[in-house]
Amino acid sequence: MTNATIRAAAEAMSVWSSTSRAERSTILRSLASELAASSDDLVPVTDAETGLGTGRLVGELARTVHQLRMFADVVDEGAYLEVTIDHADPAAPVPIAGDVRRWLVPLGPVAVYSASNFPLAFSVLGGDTASALAAGCTVVVKAHQGHPRTSELVHEIAARVFREAGMPEGVLGLVHGRDAGRTLICHPEISAAGFTGSVSGGRALADLAHDRPHPIPFFGELGSQNTLVISPGAAETRGADIAEGLATSVLLGSGQFCTKPGLVLLPNSASGQRILEHLADSIRTASVSRLLTTAIQDGFISGSRELEASAGINLIARGDSAAVDGLAPALWECAPEHLDGVALEECFGPTAVVVRYGDEDELLGLVRKVRPALTASFHTETSEQSLSKALLETLTPKAGRVVANQYPTGVAVTWSMHHGGPSPSTTDSQHTSVGATAIRRFLRPVAFQNVDPALLPDELQDTTELAVPRRVDGVLIS
Amino acid sequence: MTNATIRAAAEAMSVWSSTSRAERSTILRSLASELAASSDDLVPVTDAETGLGTGRLVGELARTVHQLRMFADVVDEGAYLEVTIDHADPAAPVPIAGDVRRWLVPLGPVAVYSASNFPLAFSVLGGDTASALAAGCTVVVKAHQGHPRTSELVHEIAARVFREAGMPEGVLGLVHGRDAGRTLICHPEISAAGFTGSVSGGRALADLAHDRPHPIPFFGELGSQNTLVISPGAAETRGADIAEGLATSVLLGSGQFCTKPGLVLLPNSASGQRILEHLADSIRTASVSRLLTTAIQDGFISGSRELEASAGINLIARGDSAAVDGLAPALWECAPEHLDGVALEECFGPTAVVVRYGDEDELLGLVRKVRPALTASFHTETSEQSLSKALLETLTPKAGRVVANQYPTGVAVTWSMHHGGPSPSTTDSQHTSVGATAIRRFLRPVAFQNVDPALLPDELQDTTELAVPRRVDGVLIS
Repeated sequence: MTNATIRAAAEAMSVWSSTSRAERSTILRSLASELAASSDDLVPVTDAETGLGTGRLVGELARTVHQLRMFADVVDEGAYLEVTIDHADPAAPVPIAGDVRRWLVPLGPVAVYSASNFPLAFSVLGGDTASALAAGCTVVVKAHQGHPRTSELVHEIAARVFREAGMPEGVLGLVHGRDAGRTLICHPEISAAGFTGSVSGGRALADLAHDRPHPIPFFGELGSQNTLVISPGAAETRGADIAEGLATSVLLGSGQFCTKPGLVLLPNSASGQRILEHLADSIRTASVSRLLTTAIQDGFISGSRELEASAGINLIARGDSAAVDGLAPALWECAPEHLDGVALEECFGPTAVVVRYGDEDELLGLVRKVRPALTASFHTETSEQSLSKALLETLTPKAGRVVANQYPTGVAVTWSMHHGGPSPSTTDSQHTSVGATAIRRFLRPVAFQNVDPALLPDELQDTTELAVPRRVDGVLIS
Repeated sequence: MTNATIRAAAEAMSVWSSTSRAERSTILRSLASELAASSDDLVPVTDAETGLGTGRLVGELARTVHQLRMFADVVDEGAYLEVTIDHADPAAPVPIAGDVRRWLVPLGPVAVYSASNFPLAFSVLGGDTASALAAGCTVVVKAHQGHPRTSELVHEIAARVFREAGMPEGVLGLVHGRDAGRTLICHPEISAAGFTGSVSGGRALADLAHDRPHPIPFFGELGSQNTLVISPGAAETRGADIAEGLATSVLLGSGQFCTKPGLVLLPNSASGQRILEHLADSIRTASVSRLLTTAIQDGFISGSRELEASAGINLIARGDSAAVDGLAPALWECAPEHLDGVALEECFGPTAVVVRYGDEDELLGLVRKVRPALTASFHTETSEQSLSKALLETLTPKAGRVVANQYPTGVAVTWSMHHGGPSPSTTDSQHTSVGATAIRRFLRPVAFQNVDPALLPDELQDTTELAVPRRVDGVLIS
């Protein structure tokens, strides 16, 4: 079954990869519209499977629709092709024997591993699928076991769109189960993979991808312990606002975001104390839904136990009611001298660890100890310019996105977004799973030397009606 | 010793990565000029170590100088930074909470493994080093054992330039020996690696890079068996010219180029026969120098023995004199039905395998069997448009560069060049080791959200004197 789906994806490559950009963007927009139109049917099913709630899921559907449309825009514009033309110049310092015309071509069928916590936006028609389809790759999605019916429903919507567009059904396949996931990553017809999930699951698949006779690129987004720093000035000036915003960010979606600020560095001062108390109150009174899967629940419980058992880590507050036993939100405090081990690791769910620092030197020392992550945030006042600079300098090597005076949850889907940090937060910090440049993961360059332009696609001609932004003889033309 | 060199590279990162683009390009140009000025001292040493000959080495030095200058141009222009700015738009379909400013930052210290066959252009100040330095990364070069004195000399030239520019000596380090090579790839301070060499050596290092607690990107260019097709029409119309050009390409540098056309598909016709005879004559009378290292000599001898022992492969011609016993150039013919195994593998040195095809169907069937490679070439006539199209379509998935009516050796160093093919020819087909975009291997994106522009570099300002090509609110500005 899995093998047949992969073979269908491989066979569909010749048709899908040779669609024009206009055809592909039209289909991406149809997928977006049909998905948007299915909201009333889809959201209740997804809510029943995940418990994420209608409001959140309606928002996530809008995000998913937007992602498909953004990649349609990316395809229409065509800069993603990186078209670069150098004309022959036998007199150059290193001779250019013939015209060289470079662009990017799709890698081949892509395996997409759905996320538990984004049953729409990082699932069957989510960001990985949208960017791979936009690149001209066919896709086989490994459904997440947490939302199989949602996956089937979305796949049916997509299959109808592809069918009506005259595309083979192999353009987007769907498989279920762990065995299928392993089969996918090892299959010789699969050319690349996108994954959103745990460090252990991601690393296991990354190993399989690397150990193939012909390794393939594996883009894993593996979650992270995101640091958020509150400066003495910010704590003093707007401590209550920050505590409010931070609590919302920590508890959003029951803390099940890979961008959740799980490690908070606070000044050891009266204003810091007030923030801590405010956070503790929010945690105590939070109403959080059940977690997404039993695996996530088990992970949260065992992570909490590890925190509880660690030297120098104390429980500050715990919710007194929980949807499931042992799953109450919790706030922990870690003594600065004990900031290592478990406090530096993500505990996926409604929880955070607070560390109180004495002075700026201690703060920067603590920041140097945090693990690389998807995001790092700091709240400072404009009067604290030198501290802000020092924090920016210290946090940037640790993160893919640095956020000032805001919260890291709620990732914008834009041309400029980067969602991917140094190891262990992703398997490839040079690429992103959110934003327009996510398409680059599924493309590779090819240069054509001295090839008759009549044999080449329109985008590579010297003069063309379908002009795309490009570089000709070293000069950018947009 | 190796560890101290790596530590120096790590310590030099803060200085080197925070140089301005103008400072960095000035230093790259100084390296180029000083290297060019050292030609008279350097070339005789390199010739004594490699036997490549003065003419070739003077040319290679010019190439090396050009590479450094090209990356200076790349740095000056600044498009490589991929600056992308989206302004806050809380009303967007997915809200943009604050301005997002994305650019690329250097990964950290890079390990560069020198090539045997380019003692200047892919060695201490070669393309990998130039692109890593341009990116703002410090570099530790693992010298190739085939040219240690050349490596030391070039390193001394570079060290002087860095010293005079006030840069720490850790910006470019040099280590020797296999143990140092292993230490490098496993060292926690090393952030990426570039490698040019054998499939086995490259794969071993790639495994070490992947198996680290925090894996790092490994860009290995591992050589390839490059296919060159001659069509019936081309054989008929200009067979003698093609045979001449092809023999030159096969024998260039004693066949020690990873772009050598090692597999030639010829029509089984009178004109094909004439090309074969011409090639055989060239091979028989070729005067080739000794091969670069004893390892390469041993590899050539054992590769030749494997060809000799293979069913369906026959010796067509062998040079009757050789610099070293057993190292005579050789031309082999493989029966089309035996095109598998050893005939599909690179035999590094002055040799090629010819296969004669009956008709176009057989030709395309053979092309489908060849291994992915750095390059693939075809010679066709304009009257053979449909064959040309079919060849282009069949060869493109197999190669990083497709060459028409020219020869694959002699790689131009340009904005558009791509030197990297699907596995097994490189470890990462999405990147290149030649051409301007080679710099992308040593950079990763970072997005700054809502960060006060006063804290950010000039390139990320809304209005700036040091304007670089960029994308603002979705619109490219070059």
